[in-house]
Amino acid sequence: MYQRVALIGLGLIASSIFWAGKRGGVAAEFTGYARSKATRDTARRIGLCDRICDSAAAAVEDADLVILCVPVGAMGDVAAEIAPRLKPGAVVSDVGSVKKAVIEAVAPHLPDGVHFIPAHPLAGTEHSGPESGFAELFDNRWSLLVPVEDSDPEEVARLGRFWRALGANVEEMDAEHHDLVLAVTSHTPHLIAYTMVGVADDLRRVTDGEVIKYSAAGFRDFTRIAASDPTMWRDVFLTNKEATLEILGRFTEELFALQRAIRTGDGQHLHDYFTRTRAIRRGILDAGQDIDAPDFGRGLGRRD
Amino acid sequence: MYQRVALIGLGLIASSIFWAGKRGGVAAEFTGYARSKATRDTARRIGLCDRICDSAAAAVEDADLVILCVPVGAMGDVAAEIAPRLKPGAVVSDVGSVKKAVIEAVAPHLPDGVHFIPAHPLAGTEHSGPESGFAELFDNRWSLLVPVEDSDPEEVARLGRFWRALGANVEEMDAEHHDLVLAVTSHTPHLIAYTMVGVADDLRRVTDGEVIKYSAAGFRDFTRIAASDPTMWRDVFLTNKEATLEILGRFTEELFALQRAIRTGDGQHLHDYFTRTRAIRRGILDAGQDIDAPDFGRGLGRRD
Repeated sequence: MYQRVALIGLGLIASSIFWAGKRGGVAAEFTGYARSKATRDTARRIGLCDRICDSAAAAVEDADLVILCVPVGAMGDVAAEIAPRLKPGAVVSDVGSVKKAVIEAVAPHLPDGVHFIPAHPLAGTEHSGPESGFAELFDNRWSLLVPVEDSDPEEVARLGRFWRALGANVEEMDAEHHDLVLAVTSHTPHLIAYTMVGVADDLRRVTDGEVIKYSAAGFRDFTRIAASDPTMWRDVFLTNKEATLEILGRFTEELFALQRAIRTGDGQHLHDYFTRTRAIRRGILDAGQDIDAPDFGRGLGRRD
Repeated sequence: MYQRVALIGLGLIASSIFWAGKRGGVAAEFTGYARSKATRDTARRIGLCDRICDSAAAAVEDADLVILCVPVGAMGDVAAEIAPRLKPGAVVSDVGSVKKAVIEAVAPHLPDGVHFIPAHPLAGTEHSGPESGFAELFDNRWSLLVPVEDSDPEEVARLGRFWRALGANVEEMDAEHHDLVLAVTSHTPHLIAYTMVGVADDLRRVTDGEVIKYSAAGFRDFTRIAASDPTMWRDVFLTNKEATLEILGRFTEELFALQRAIRTGDGQHLHDYFTRTRAIRRGILDAGQDIDAPDFGRGLGRRD
């Protein structure tokens, strides 16, 4: 599909692209680069990428597809660094969780004759680093392509085939809508989970030991989300400010309405609200985007 | 351990007590009662309890241990109904998620010579009803005993052995502290999850279809929590009002601080906050209260 694919940044997503790419036979060669020497050493030790380079410029040399897999806040600098070494006709893509800010940061650096096709695979776990990747990460998940104004349709289609070969479903979306959808489905939920865990950690009247021991009652699901990479998430909130603040405003409004129902003892309001939210869960199960095993099937057996 | 155990209310917790109780050999006979005829019919069909009775009074006849497994708001009425039929020396317990309100609702109805020992197993899934129970639900989870002032220590110890035989760890706690700990580890997280799902459902600029399709980015974990039984949760919030409102206040305060950091671009504040919350996750894993498989091991394979 591509002769040489360069992965810049070697964390969970890049390492999963490599393993899924090997499984799917999408490229003759993968090169890789990470800023930290320790990460490059780990990558070499575990056989991540066919060749690990000691500079981003060397990694992108002769590559047909370059995927920027660094935190959103680092995209601009990396683009500036690799721009002079990009092969004419090469495709530059990325995996950032925010799209408007990445386009603004990257596009100005890219020379004419290079195709820029931003993308965002909606997949991840709470683990990070080069050893956290696995070939199945993208299976049946969505990868969103966010073409810019002058993206070549043929190259967009080829990148779509690449992601399908990694196991993903592919859809196109414009950057502004992408950032709003992700603010709802990902960014605000993460911020809320981080907040809840922070509150528990900070509460003097309940010890950390108690919070940890009794976490199975709901709290532990929040801690899983709140264990994701801090740098990645800092950058997401700083660069998707507008949409996140909009959804946070809506969230606070709803939360205050429920809080008021609790204070005034309005059981009907609470019951109606809690009933309505069940339908969305059903939709997610029907769409194959989660499993119905109780508690995510956390190793619990069932009677039947 | 007990000759006859009566389960009043036949949902997730009661049915799991029965299956775990059979596995652990904790009683010679389980009787059961549910208000709805459909539930009783289902229970009979799937062999839930040794005997299903058509009234709560009949179910508690001659029982040594009666466990109230109904929503918190229904506890008082059920206690009043069974009180005249309780055997002298019987133990009455419950599994309610709130303890102060249950004690206030139940204790006044119970005759002298009956032991009241409130309890709360911290276990559950997002499923409900008589068919959702399974024997392993309580394994390695905590069951909190909340003795009242005149609870007989020997009967408290016996009930502790009962819960251990169901697979649980057992601890004692006073009612007020219980309600605060649960407000942090369970009640507020649930309210927040319900709120977030409600916001997504209500947002006109993002369709439900999009929310569902792209839920894997974090949102689906909230929908699982927000799929729990609406009646149970309405009652929890109405009866643990004080502690829930206290924790909600703290939550809102922290959320506003993070919102302000986003608005002002204070990346250091965000990064510090997101780093601190990782430690709690580590504690939960070390305490064996969750598994470290990425994404809860949702059927995803790993490279190694």
